[in-house]
Amino acid sequence: MSVANPILIPELRVMLAEGDTAGLREVAAELHPATVAEFSEGLEDGELWQMLEALPVERQAEIFPYYPMPRQVELVKAGDRAHLGPLIEWMAPDNRDDLLRELDPELVEEILPLVAKAERHDIRMLLSCPEGSAGSLMTTEYASLPADVTAGEAITRLRSQAPDSESIYYIYVLDGERQLLGFVSLRDLILAKPTALVADLMQRDPISVRVEEPREKVVEKLARFDFIAIPVVDDRNRLVGIVTHDDVLDAVRQEATDDAQRIAAIQPLGESYLEAALVSMTWKRGVWLAILFATAAVTAMVLAKWRSPHAWLVAFIPLVIASGGNSGNQSATLVITALSTGDCRLTDWPRILRRELALGLLLGGLLAVPGYLLALAYAPTAAAAAVIPLTIVGVVLMGTLVGSALPLLFRSLDLDPALMSNPFVSAIVDIVGIVLYMSVALALLG
Amino acid sequence: MSVANPILIPELRVMLAEGDTAGLREVAAELHPATVAEFSEGLEDGELWQMLEALPVERQAEIFPYYPMPRQVELVKAGDRAHLGPLIEWMAPDNRDDLLRELDPELVEEILPLVAKAERHDIRMLLSCPEGSAGSLMTTEYASLPADVTAGEAITRLRSQAPDSESIYYIYVLDGERQLLGFVSLRDLILAKPTALVADLMQRDPISVRVEEPREKVVEKLARFDFIAIPVVDDRNRLVGIVTHDDVLDAVRQEATDDAQRIAAIQPLGESYLEAALVSMTWKRGVWLAILFATAAVTAMVLAKWRSPHAWLVAFIPLVIASGGNSGNQSATLVITALSTGDCRLTDWPRILRRELALGLLLGGLLAVPGYLLALAYAPTAAAAAVIPLTIVGVVLMGTLVGSALPLLFRSLDLDPALMSNPFVSAIVDIVGIVLYMSVALALLG
Repeated sequence: MSVANPILIPELRVMLAEGDTAGLREVAAELHPATVAEFSEGLEDGELWQMLEALPVERQAEIFPYYPMPRQVELVKAGDRAHLGPLIEWMAPDNRDDLLRELDPELVEEILPLVAKAERHDIRMLLSCPEGSAGSLMTTEYASLPADVTAGEAITRLRSQAPDSESIYYIYVLDGERQLLGFVSLRDLILAKPTALVADLMQRDPISVRVEEPREKVVEKLARFDFIAIPVVDDRNRLVGIVTHDDVLDAVRQEATDDAQRIAAIQPLGESYLEAALVSMTWKRGVWLAILFATAAVTAMVLAKWRSPHAWLVAFIPLVIASGGNSGNQSATLVITALSTGDCRLTDWPRILRRELALGLLLGGLLAVPGYLLALAYAPTAAAAAVIPLTIVGVVLMGTLVGSALPLLFRSLDLDPALMSNPFVSAIVDIVGIVLYMSVALALLG
Repeated sequence: MSVANPILIPELRVMLAEGDTAGLREVAAELHPATVAEFSEGLEDGELWQMLEALPVERQAEIFPYYPMPRQVELVKAGDRAHLGPLIEWMAPDNRDDLLRELDPELVEEILPLVAKAERHDIRMLLSCPEGSAGSLMTTEYASLPADVTAGEAITRLRSQAPDSESIYYIYVLDGERQLLGFVSLRDLILAKPTALVADLMQRDPISVRVEEPREKVVEKLARFDFIAIPVVDDRNRLVGIVTHDDVLDAVRQEATDDAQRIAAIQPLGESYLEAALVSMTWKRGVWLAILFATAAVTAMVLAKWRSPHAWLVAFIPLVIASGGNSGNQSATLVITALSTGDCRLTDWPRILRRELALGLLLGGLLAVPGYLLALAYAPTAAAAAVIPLTIVGVVLMGTLVGSALPLLFRSLDLDPALMSNPFVSAIVDIVGIVLYMSVALALLG
């Protein structure tokens, strides 16, 4: 997605006012579509449509997906219906699918009749794939060949298919039923003898993903095998589309942002920070702040009620609780990132818990030392001060274990491990921490 | 990077014991190099070398980079020096550079004389690029052409250069000084008339990165323009290498993991979670836990010292402080992710601070309501209870402002915004929060 750059806006406005179609076409032809989007984003909706309509529809369809999604939606709503049909028809299927998913279903039903029938079938197929699945990321534009042609013939056929730049580099080899037999790279076709058979050049049993597999699987496979694109097949191994490297890169960046936001107890914004509405942002942050507030309120109530003869113990409650919460957040984040990058699998759980057990003891021991020294300054006796280091070890250990176990539990339930783990960790560690603290104090001091 | 899969280990061991070179070659030829690495990772070092040495050196060089980096280093240390030279020579320059950067400089100096002279120059050039720069990500394997050849000739020349699969898809057009004039895609060459001149087909003034530019710039440009590779030039616009999509994808995943770990107050592990040594992990977590512990200790000391006539106020300290810390962490994370994805720029700081000002008031107001209700249960009068909601609004507002300003400050100092922001935010919010709380209480209750 581009960031608006206002530098050319005055020139564009002059060209629009003068009706300088030739000038606009020249600008649009010379610059990368992403750059055209960047420079024109600052125009009003009406001006922007006027600029787009001065260009050939193929070029419009290349530029349009580079506007930020909220702007694309706004432009579609403001646009002339008669013009929208051809534009949508020319857009790459994956970009079109991303846009249509953001529109009201009624608006989609209004636009679809304006699109050519063949494309309409593709659109409905892509829209029917669940959000976040391989199907929702894929494009239906790919190059394919039967196995029994020669390399020379293959290149001639490619010339007539003239596929999109993203999808010409791997050519998928299909049988009569469109089942995926293998693939051949454009490089191999170019380097091969023109008389060589595609069947002999192709790599058989290619790595593919199923249309319903989740986005993370697609990312993992494409990243592991360094592919430019990965084929998507249905349950009978028939090719239905491909996911290209650029969409995977976008998905990875989106996923990473979502994960970081979840780790910081924010419901993922799903849009650009500066573009998110204040109300929706307040809600997405407020709901988790309120949950964290509720667990901290439990601590406050315990503190207010505690009429202990050992008043100094009360002062240490937040310190002890925070140590558990911080180490728990660290563990949860490490396990979440390790699961999402494929560094660990669910089946590694015994190793993970053993590590976190050891780390909990080490880190707890590390913090217990300054904790004990600080307690000595306030506690009546050195023996009484031992409540603090003992509780710290216990709470940090509980933090690391709860923090690592919760994401594993979420993954085993087929939920996103980043989903709610950290607020959950805080809530559990806060409340169990207080109970532990009071039990240790009771046991040692009576 | 692959995850070890032990399923074929028994079969591989039988083949190795029987000296079945033909069988091993067949396995290695049929599977993707990433898959061969996955299946053979479970072998002992000696066995693994025995397997690799049964294969042609080109194939060895394809498989080797797919082992996890710590294993690659271990294998190099255990390997036969005479064998290492050719293996390193055949590895793709970017993979080789990644490996050599992990080895002791003495070991590198021991291996380099075993590598052919032409490659040695490339190796030294790549190794001299600072870690995290475009130069450290790039490969020196790319296809290039002069501008004055025809499309037909260009394809013939490409056949003889037979470049690596990663780098054949864009061909860079250079002048006599190797300055970058433009590029032409393999697709355009194939679709063009064989007599068309490359000079007419190429895209001029291509988007490129400078060799010293940071990794994030490379990611941003490649992601924005959906390229398979991006050219890297020196200060005189001479082509020195390219960065390919697969290395960018790896860099993005690594960067996202590092950011998430920094947000959770962990110094980035820089290696796989399960492979990191316990000692280094204890250090990387312990140092930030200790800093967070120190700021919480300040709270504890204030609590212990506070001999207020309003004892109930003490109980609310952790609740009030935690609200500020949580909202500050949210703001810091949002700004860090927005800066790293390019959603915001440093120059957007007035808009960002205005947003966070509004959000601080909204979120503070939201939490003030339950805070007031809870305070009513403990405070002697309704007016006294007002200390709590007033402080909550102030602390949350301070959290959002400090949380958003610190990453902006770090970025303006050319430091990574994710670096230390969250522990810093916590420390500042904790300490200022207590001062604010005591001032409000003093002002309202005397």
